[in-house]
Amino acid sequence: MPVDARRTIADLEELRGLTADERGAQRIAWTPTWLKARAWFQSKLAGLPVEHHLDAAGNSWTTLRGESDRTLILGSHLDSVPNGGWLDGCLGVLAGFEVLRGLAEDFQGRPPVTIRLVDWADEEGARFGRSLFGSSAFAGTHSIQADRDRTDRDGIRLEDALRGCQVDVERIGDAAVERGQAGAYLEMHIEQGPVLERKQLPLGVVLGTKGVERHAITFHGQEAHSGSTPMAVRRDALAAAAKLALEIRPIAKKHPDAVATMGSVKTFPGIVTAVVGRCETTLDMRDLDAGVLASMLAEAQQASRRFAAEEGCTVEWSRIWSIEPIPFDPRLIAFCDEAVREIAGDSHRLPSGPLHDAAEVARAGIPVVMMFTQSLAGLSHNPAENTRTEHLELAVQAFDRLARKTMQWLV
Amino acid sequence: MPVDARRTIADLEELRGLTADERGAQRIAWTPTWLKARAWFQSKLAGLPVEHHLDAAGNSWTTLRGESDRTLILGSHLDSVPNGGWLDGCLGVLAGFEVLRGLAEDFQGRPPVTIRLVDWADEEGARFGRSLFGSSAFAGTHSIQADRDRTDRDGIRLEDALRGCQVDVERIGDAAVERGQAGAYLEMHIEQGPVLERKQLPLGVVLGTKGVERHAITFHGQEAHSGSTPMAVRRDALAAAAKLALEIRPIAKKHPDAVATMGSVKTFPGIVTAVVGRCETTLDMRDLDAGVLASMLAEAQQASRRFAAEEGCTVEWSRIWSIEPIPFDPRLIAFCDEAVREIAGDSHRLPSGPLHDAAEVARAGIPVVMMFTQSLAGLSHNPAENTRTEHLELAVQAFDRLARKTMQWLV
Repeated sequence: MPVDARRTIADLEELRGLTADERGAQRIAWTPTWLKARAWFQSKLAGLPVEHHLDAAGNSWTTLRGESDRTLILGSHLDSVPNGGWLDGCLGVLAGFEVLRGLAEDFQGRPPVTIRLVDWADEEGARFGRSLFGSSAFAGTHSIQADRDRTDRDGIRLEDALRGCQVDVERIGDAAVERGQAGAYLEMHIEQGPVLERKQLPLGVVLGTKGVERHAITFHGQEAHSGSTPMAVRRDALAAAAKLALEIRPIAKKHPDAVATMGSVKTFPGIVTAVVGRCETTLDMRDLDAGVLASMLAEAQQASRRFAAEEGCTVEWSRIWSIEPIPFDPRLIAFCDEAVREIAGDSHRLPSGPLHDAAEVARAGIPVVMMFTQSLAGLSHNPAENTRTEHLELAVQAFDRLARKTMQWLV
Repeated sequence: MPVDARRTIADLEELRGLTADERGAQRIAWTPTWLKARAWFQSKLAGLPVEHHLDAAGNSWTTLRGESDRTLILGSHLDSVPNGGWLDGCLGVLAGFEVLRGLAEDFQGRPPVTIRLVDWADEEGARFGRSLFGSSAFAGTHSIQADRDRTDRDGIRLEDALRGCQVDVERIGDAAVERGQAGAYLEMHIEQGPVLERKQLPLGVVLGTKGVERHAITFHGQEAHSGSTPMAVRRDALAAAAKLALEIRPIAKKHPDAVATMGSVKTFPGIVTAVVGRCETTLDMRDLDAGVLASMLAEAQQASRRFAAEEGCTVEWSRIWSIEPIPFDPRLIAFCDEAVREIAGDSHRLPSGPLHDAAEVARAGIPVVMMFTQSLAGLSHNPAENTRTEHLELAVQAFDRLARKTMQWLV
């Protein structure tokens, strides 16, 4: 039987009613509201021919056993940021659930391959600052050593919060066993950006997640009195930073999908009557091509040194964090493109700027693709996050089509 | 007899020993350390043919009566900022004191005109945020209404702190009576800037204090995810602000003495992963010519609107504070120039970017001039503030020369 997309929308609305307040969704991982969302989800499984269990990292697995142990995984996450939207994460879980229900019915509880739906634990990292928690444990890229001592804003330790959810931090690596005979992983997510809306397309195919270079850049000049210091003798750290803030834009615009952002500028002493002596900035650069990303970084570093010299300043760089680009599987990208075209008429391929659990699954060597649904105004992590109803319906139908194509390929 | 500049330096060192700690001078107005500095100064008057009193605003007056009531006023301030330098303010008081001592001796306690030395109360405004307190009360430009409810960081009210120093806020306007038959006002001060040092000149003649336009400028764009928002669709408030930070420099550089400073930039949300949605900046522009200052402001406003439009942003301006340029007296400027040339060989005329008590005295219609002494590295409001000993000696000698020329003119 065809999927019933209206049932998915009703599920999303029911979940919102249970786990959002007037400020938005409150399904922060490892909190009672998140556990309530998961309990609600499990209650939906009653009467279906599926098994359910939590793995060693707290990921929630729903398994529809097939003729073969070869496995197709569908997944996303039920957790949200504080004051989050009604679609980020849970759309993927509930669209996957609708696909699973349809396959269970069509194949009388026994499809040709095993179908599993996963709700990853703590994709957002909103409480402890460690995102992609469960999927990275699954992928084996997560060592708990660096995160053991994380605390939330109330001083509660990660380890203690996890114990309250029946997860032992010492054992999260055991989640790797869930990889089993996984042959493919599919994830549906809202775009969280404006690209599909500007193209007036409901759906898109994700090529991979961009690599990220994230740096702190500080310019050192000379604090001086704004009234008594002639323009010609100033060593203005803000001027050097302002030049860089503008220069990163042509550097990024050379490449079609690259982005570069100066998100934070702090001035010291930061008073109206003093030339800025020190200016602390941050830079975030992303691209799907590792070579492009490396050349952008080198250009920005070179430009910063030139601007520092021009302004009689010095400049210091310090890497905050980085990750390599993670390209998705070409065959699955082709299936996804077909599925989107069949359901929505036209498709568009785009990289994802934000990271997703799918990137961790890809790092485990499992073929992966994601499908994006249009986001209105590109808003996310915000209660105003929204997607047109008709686009949500197309999304569920296209995701079902993608799952069936992938299943055929795995048989 | 000639002035003994070494005595002035010894006085400065004695005052530093009494009122500075390892972090610098602590003579903040209306505090015990300031009262200690003033008591020390009064103790120096013993045996001199002078009268001393505090006026209604707390200004400290030392009067050497002359043959005529026509009065030459010498002055500056003993108060300092927290962790201040050893010269800012007190050099002018103690150089003036040395001149007064010399005149008292030369004229056997009865010079042809009356000579008065004033130590203005609270030039810095360091504790309550209201600078030029005593001199503006003298000039009649200070209404206490706007300042009555000021408090210090401990919540102590201005009114209560003043009462502890025998000043009644309701009566500060009575300080106007001190104007009497004032014919001229002379003030010596360190430059607090790098101009004289760069010209390798010990002394300079101040043309007046620059007018100031001080504004808060906020650019409003659109906060957006740094990973998912393509460069072409961003509305980056920081980019518009960066353009303005750079553009104010050519605007100021069109005029020889004009300055323009963006001293503070704040970004919101101000995180590494978000395009800046709102950018709050400050602008401080100064020039000695009111027409130049007005045209600079108009150019900056126009540029900000152009940059906002280019970046898909809007811009809001709000005036923080402004003051018109205050030119000093042309005859006194000529006397000061002569005095500096006679003592130091060469002179230089420059406007003052910082405000001084002299500006308030000029607003009262009294002819005014200031003499500047070179500052090392332009540093001030800082314990590293310093001036070469030989320059301090030249300063006292030139200031004495200026006082005698002015006295002859007033006779």
